Amino acid sequence: MVNTTFLFEMFSSIADRGRQLLGREDDGGPGSRRASDVADLCKTLLGGRGEASGAALALESLDAYGSLDPASRAEFFSALERDFGPDADAVSKAIERWKASPSEKAATAIHFASEPRRQELFRRLNRAPGGTAALVRMRADLLDARAGKPDLATVDRDFEHLLSSWFNRGFLVLRRIDWSTPASILEKIIRYEAVHAIRGWDDLRRRIDPVDRRCYAFFHPALVDEPLIFVEVALTSGIPAAIEPLLAETRDMVRLEKTTTAVFYSISNCQRGLAGISFGNFLIKQVVEELRRELPKIETFVTLSPVNGFVRWLKSNLGALSPEDQVMAGTLDDPGWANVPALAEKMRRALEPMAAYYFLHGRTPGGRPFDPVARFHLGNGARLERLNWLGDRSPKAMTESAGLMVNYLYDLDDIEQNHEAFANEGSTAASGPVKKLVRSDLRQRLQNAASSSTQSAS
Amino acid sequence: MVNTTFLFEMFSSIADRGRQLLGREDDGGPGSRRASDVADLCKTLLGGRGEASGAALALESLDAYGSLDPASRAEFFSALERDFGPDADAVSKAIERWKASPSEKAATAIHFASEPRRQELFRRLNRAPGGTAALVRMRADLLDARAGKPDLATVDRDFEHLLSSWFNRGFLVLRRIDWSTPASILEKIIRYEAVHAIRGWDDLRRRIDPVDRRCYAFFHPALVDEPLIFVEVALTSGIPAAIEPLLAETRDMVRLEKTTTAVFYSISNCQRGLAGISFGNFLIKQVVEELRRELPKIETFVTLSPVNGFVRWLKSNLGALSPEDQVMAGTLDDPGWANVPALAEKMRRALEPMAAYYFLHGRTPGGRPFDPVARFHLGNGARLERLNWLGDRSPKAMTESAGLMVNYLYDLDDIEQNHEAFANEGSTAASGPVKKLVRSDLRQRLQNAASSSTQSAS
Amino acid sequence: MVNTTFLFEMFSSIADRGRQLLGREDDGGPGSRRASDVADLCKTLLGGRGEASGAALALESLDAYGSLDPASRAEFFSALERDFGPDADAVSKAIERWKASPSEKAATAIHFASEPRRQELFRRLNRAPGGTAALVRMRADLLDARAGKPDLATVDRDFEHLLSSWFNRGFLVLRRIDWSTPASILEKIIRYEAVHAIRGWDDLRRRIDPVDRRCYAFFHPALVDEPLIFVEVALTSGIPAAIEPLLAETRDMVRLEKTTTAVFYSISNCQRGLAGISFGNFLIKQVVEELRRELPKIETFVTLSPVNGFVRWLKSNLGALSPEDQVMAGTLDDPGWANVPALAEKMRRALEPMAAYYFLHGRTPGGRPFDPVARFHLGNGARLERLNWLGDRSPKAMTESAGLMVNYLYDLDDIEQNHEAFANEGSTAASGPVKKLVRSDLRQRLQNAASSSTQSAS
Amino acid sequence: MVNTTFLFEMFSSIADRGRQLLGREDDGGPGSRRASDVADLCKTLLGGRGEASGAALALESLDAYGSLDPASRAEFFSALERDFGPDADAVSKAIERWKASPSEKAATAIHFASEPRRQELFRRLNRAPGGTAALVRMRADLLDARAGKPDLATVDRDFEHLLSSWFNRGFLVLRRIDWSTPASILEKIIRYEAVHAIRGWDDLRRRIDPVDRRCYAFFHPALVDEPLIFVEVALTSGIPAAIEPLLAETRDMVRLEKTTTAVFYSISNCQRGLAGISFGNFLIKQVVEELRRELPKIETFVTLSPVNGFVRWLKSNLGALSPEDQVMAGTLDDPGWANVPALAEKMRRALEPMAAYYFLHGRTPGGRPFDPVARFHLGNGARLERLNWLGDRSPKAMTESAGLMVNYLYDLDDIEQNHEAFANEGSTAASGPVKKLVRSDLRQRLQNAASSSTQSAS
Repeated sequence: MVNTTFLFEMFSSIADRGRQLLGREDDGGPGSRRASDVADLCKTLLGGRGEASGAALALESLDAYGSLDPASRAEFFSALERDFGPDADAVSKAIERWKASPSEKAATAIHFASEPRRQELFRRLNRAPGGTAALVRMRADLLDARAGKPDLATVDRDFEHLLSSWFNRGFLVLRRIDWSTPASILEKIIRYEAVHAIRGWDDLRRRIDPVDRRCYAFFHPALVDEPLIFVEVALTSGIPAAIEPLLAETRDMVRLEKTTTAVFYSISNCQRGLAGISFGNFLIKQVVEELRRELPKIETFVTLSPVNGFVRWLKSNLGALSPEDQVMAGTLDDPGWANVPALAEKMRRALEPMAAYYFLHGRTPGGRPFDPVARFHLGNGARLERLNWLGDRSPKAMTESAGLMVNYLYDLDDIEQNHEAFANEGSTAASGPVKKLVRSDLRQRLQNAASSSTQSAS
Repeated sequence: MVNTTFLFEMFSSIADRGRQLLGREDDGGPGSRRASDVADLCKTLLGGRGEASGAALALESLDAYGSLDPASRAEFFSALERDFGPDADAVSKAIERWKASPSEKAATAIHFASEPRRQELFRRLNRAPGGTAALVRMRADLLDARAGKPDLATVDRDFEHLLSSWFNRGFLVLRRIDWSTPASILEKIIRYEAVHAIRGWDDLRRRIDPVDRRCYAFFHPALVDEPLIFVEVALTSGIPAAIEPLLAETRDMVRLEKTTTAVFYSISNCQRGLAGISFGNFLIKQVVEELRRELPKIETFVTLSPVNGFVRWLKSNLGALSPEDQVMAGTLDDPGWANVPALAEKMRRALEPMAAYYFLHGRTPGGRPFDPVARFHLGNGARLERLNWLGDRSPKAMTESAGLMVNYLYDLDDIEQNHEAFANEGSTAASGPVKKLVRSDLRQRLQNAASSSTQSAS
Repeated sequence: MVNTTFLFEMFSSIADRGRQLLGREDDGGPGSRRASDVADLCKTLLGGRGEASGAALALESLDAYGSLDPASRAEFFSALERDFGPDADAVSKAIERWKASPSEKAATAIHFASEPRRQELFRRLNRAPGGTAALVRMRADLLDARAGKPDLATVDRDFEHLLSSWFNRGFLVLRRIDWSTPASILEKIIRYEAVHAIRGWDDLRRRIDPVDRRCYAFFHPALVDEPLIFVEVALTSGIPAAIEPLLAETRDMVRLEKTTTAVFYSISNCQRGLAGISFGNFLIKQVVEELRRELPKIETFVTLSPVNGFVRWLKSNLGALSPEDQVMAGTLDDPGWANVPALAEKMRRALEPMAAYYFLHGRTPGGRPFDPVARFHLGNGARLERLNWLGDRSPKAMTESAGLMVNYLYDLDDIEQNHEAFANEGSTAASGPVKKLVRSDLRQRLQNAASSSTQSAS
Repeated sequence: MVNTTFLFEMFSSIADRGRQLLGREDDGGPGSRRASDVADLCKTLLGGRGEASGAALALESLDAYGSLDPASRAEFFSALERDFGPDADAVSKAIERWKASPSEKAATAIHFASEPRRQELFRRLNRAPGGTAALVRMRADLLDARAGKPDLATVDRDFEHLLSSWFNRGFLVLRRIDWSTPASILEKIIRYEAVHAIRGWDDLRRRIDPVDRRCYAFFHPALVDEPLIFVEVALTSGIPAAIEPLLAETRDMVRLEKTTTAVFYSISNCQRGLAGISFGNFLIKQVVEELRRELPKIETFVTLSPVNGFVRWLKSNLGALSPEDQVMAGTLDDPGWANVPALAEKMRRALEPMAAYYFLHGRTPGGRPFDPVARFHLGNGARLERLNWLGDRSPKAMTESAGLMVNYLYDLDDIEQNHEAFANEGSTAASGPVKKLVRSDLRQRLQNAASSSTQSAS
């Protein structure tokens, strides 16, 4: 019963402005403007007229950009790289002054003198109604256009810098997504789900409406209709070992007072234009806080995660395995092995140690864990808690991970320590049972192979 | 009847977080922490632990800062200047690379290498609930602490840069302020009014509740309880010549269908911590749009503005006046001159030409209009429309402006052209009648004096 | 930009209370209580304890009722009829007093003395959180239970009386339904559509999301999640003659500035428990107002309506037709006649006059128009504007109405006059072309048959 | 974090409609219509045209009523009494049928046949935008007009009946009133406070803004700007004995975690037009629930109440007192007695027993407690907990209650039992200490006097 209602209409106006813009952009139709026209408008916007015109010229520029076809957009990005960089004279002068008297002030002055004019351009474009959404879309276009054009990395760096600052965690808002959420947002949840695809509205409802299911998303005030990232959560009475029962069409609901565990079973980023700007760490931590406040009995916060890179890693390390293990690994290509109980059990005994090694010691050439999902959760300070044999029997999972799933545990007391150990020493936090799975002979073989491969590479 | 309701609760959470922080800050009481403690926390926040801790460490740092007394805050700002600047090594290397190969990419690299670490610190502090509000207050503290400490200008530059980016016009929301606005916001309108003081709730109501009165403010999503800037508007059937009738306790209301003119009679900035970040131009333009949409019959958008610097300017130019004019100017010191009709009329004939000259040609040593309010409106592209003799008979106005008020006219067709003429040539857009007021002999005398003063100065 | 935000949380609490109740009702499970238990609780609620207990006892009673199975509910309704009627003594005494002195006051006193105690019971049950929704569901149960139990009509009369008063038009709220409406409400729109079934979410979206489509519903503050009645509207550039193009998956959108006509093509009641309480008239009129305010260029407000009773009426009047007409009417049973152009054209020439007669003169024994949809719109003051031959080729429509659709026109200037003519004289307002369609020989035959049937009936 | 936002705009439209009506009512100006015009409009509204016109005719009728002067309003009410009563014929026929066959159905039929046409009129007037607010104002006018016109009681009975049904507790919404409440509502809190006057906005803020102060009001969806009743609450660490410390300008705030007691120190009804419709019982109970949910540590719910009727009662019972007591009671007329400590102590010893008797046994001729505030709280099931000598030294309180205040305790376990004992036996629930205060000799004298007065009256 807090009185915060004044805000409502405050923000609806941002939404409306954004929607209006969307309509306008299409006006001219694609291809009706040239990249150089847009660049000219951008120069005007950076000049005197831009200061006087309020947001009108910014809107005109974004509209003109919106009517470019993909080739012209790429041209426009090249113009951004070429003509909207730092002022070389100013940079030289600032450097001279710093060399003459290398104070903190002079160093800072270099920073301001060397700001690419693109950044001020982006800030002025953002003045337009719906400007932020348009800039995020422009960044997505840029990512498309970058292939084969290394120079555009410079432009992208400015984009990423500014969007990181604007989408600072302090400006994000966590919202629960449920069955009373507007359909316009729900359809985006369906579309953006990247881990376990949502098959239509009924499937969506099963994930957000029951009392033992939750979904949370981050939003930004200037992008109100668009979730930035969301997480799906199942409330359970124990750590689950497989995904299928969680998503089943018919299942017994867990009464809230019996739930002890919150399972993060899917996290999806939504905005391609915000690639490289990390929200996941903050999202998980705030959802944990939210759930602890609402349901104090929930004590375990855990994921149920895919192991996408395992089979690929295994195949590239086949040569290092013992002949017996090679046979077992080769069996992965025989369809249906998992349906033969005795065979499956043999596979389990052979592959779990390999998987444990994969997590604890499998590293990229850069020394980071081979598994991308592991990199994310370990980097956030979670611990690898358990391997779940045949946790996901979907064709994709069988192919990529031999059906394996894992749980990462978020224990708030250990998060900072785990994170620092991971960041500084690259060590993987894991539970005792997981550690015990690594067979010493297997470890020996794989480490020998890895070190000889490193030697031959050097 | 647009469905934008999903937003409401989205933003209430920002508000709540902000309020919670406010409560927490006082916990330790002023003086319970030392500047070096806070600086240490800030270093940790920039290091590894900061990445893992979500927003908790940011909150702890802001809380610690909040418990510093003013002297310790000044110390902390010195630490920010000294220990949180750019990484000198990285700057040197980036400069070397640029010298070796002066590409756009290398120039941009200098920019990123030379970013003062303060900026990343501020971005991380902003992750805390209520962080934006806390940083705006910190900036206000810094402005207090800067007196006599020129080095702190470097810190302030980073603050201003980041706050400018975050308070970009695209993130601001215009809200009408009226009698159904929460009292918590209305009390701030009373407190922040800087032009014609609001004398309590009844006076406030007279300015926002009647059908022919409006008030609009800009808000920022992360600072929800706090207006950033607001403007008070009277809807009238002609351009008003005096302030007193507009603010009178009893007056005839104008029926909306008879109004033709919107009068901006007061604009006030609210946040000291946002000094130097300009919202006024955008505010006026959006209010104009808003009123045109709602009341299409309103065709004239005009201010009723004070002339604060006139008497001061006049006194500093006394020597250049003719003996007769010197007598009249001297009469300004005789209290009550305005109450003697014949004398007031003589004064008018003498002083209006001086005021017209003051606006059209009175310049600071830097060549900008002497009058600060004129600088704002002319810079926005408005035109000086009319002098209003004895438009404000309050003691303050009699002392500072000889009771003079003026109208600046916002004619949307001319705004860009006026702005450019002003920005490029420094010329003052003014109506014919105002221009005609300048007597040629007066002009001659004042220009001679000005040029000789410039010569002696050089 | 009106400040009405204070309301929001005011009403969310009603919603929450309602939802909580829904959860609680299921607690005991169906069949866990007996009808007599519930009746006893109701008696307690009407007695002293009920006054003291606030809403708790009301909630307990509704919970207990909610756990009854259908048979026990019927028993409970019988108890309501038998034990919760007027106080016979009080009625007798009031009648004596009125007979002794038949004043207005005494007559009014009879009214209050004879109020069935059920009404006060319903009012007290309504005090419970979610009480209104529970009572509406209870009324729906009663309608189920009434079959074969004429005594329950007495109970239903009290329900209808009280619900009519509570769902007075002054308490209803019109809301636009669009793609940003919560999914929980949209799914009810899908479920409740009774005229042209909505086939899933994509079909729904085509009806509410495009700029030239609208949907409006009435809501009641105490039943927030539940639309009471809704209307679907197409904005077009002329009066449409067929339903299929309006609902087509792919069609050209009409730009808003080109629309001149609002077509009400579907009106559905949602709450069985509110049967007999009429909202449709008010809904149409308020939507007309809403559209006129938003889109002043829309000048024509018209329906595209089914003609459900036509074939049934025609078959019951076959004997009165000429031999040729009988042949044509008989052809309706040949599947595919509409696909043979020449035959379809012959059918048209024969059946349109019959249909015109059906509307203008086809009457029930009670003297009202035979067509139920006609009764509704003519009763609201609309005019029958046009017959649309083969306007709906769906199997159901071919069977019930020979594919015919009609337009009723809402001309605000004529509504009251049309309504009064209809109410007082039973005359059907119709356009000239429709009137002209009635052939005099056909009319003669049908009227002769009708009057002889009336004679034989009397 | 519940998603209830869809509601917001749903209800804002009610508010807007209400506001628009307010504006329109003044159009004609008072006195521009005659009572008979309004009565004629009302007859049309009850007839056929009323059904067709939607809400337009209802609005016209209310507008016309709004332009009547007070004398014409009284005339209009007489017309309501005379011409809008039950249909005498229908009543007679229903009675005949009932006499012939006195079934439940026939008895119910009498009820519907005897409904005064006023009730249907009021229901139709309520269809107008803002109709509910207009009817509540009309009822207030009627209460003014009733003086000396006993016939109007009949009209008022219909009003009260309908308004009771519409303002059923199930339709009311509890809202916290605090410093973020719209000023338009806060000004009504200032105006309507009826117990301890609020002296302007600063005083208001002291009562609603501090963490240890609360204010709650009931609202109705159709009357959104208007609180119906509100209660002011102080959260304390013990049961307070005096009002002044609670309302003091400067006082120590109680930290929430130290509060154990919620003190209801002021309850005010706001709408004169809703006189006789009781909300207070429900308000107190819901606020208790609300506070228990938010602050589980609060265990004591108590009032701090005035004793308005004490001195009046005492003076009318002077003759029954002992000579010594008569002297003390007479001393009440000596201004300043309370400032002489020894005298005040003597007064206390004499008057407290009288006050205890006043509460426990002082009865109206009808047998109800003499004290109106006691009637309210005892009727709600509260217990008289403590007398507070000189709890209120304001002039009004010294005159009416000899400065006495009392606490009524709401103990949820005893409420129903207390209520029933009070309702059935008229007995006053009181704490042991209060009961002990009654001196037996005093009781003997007062009871003798009371019984002889009853005898002489019979």
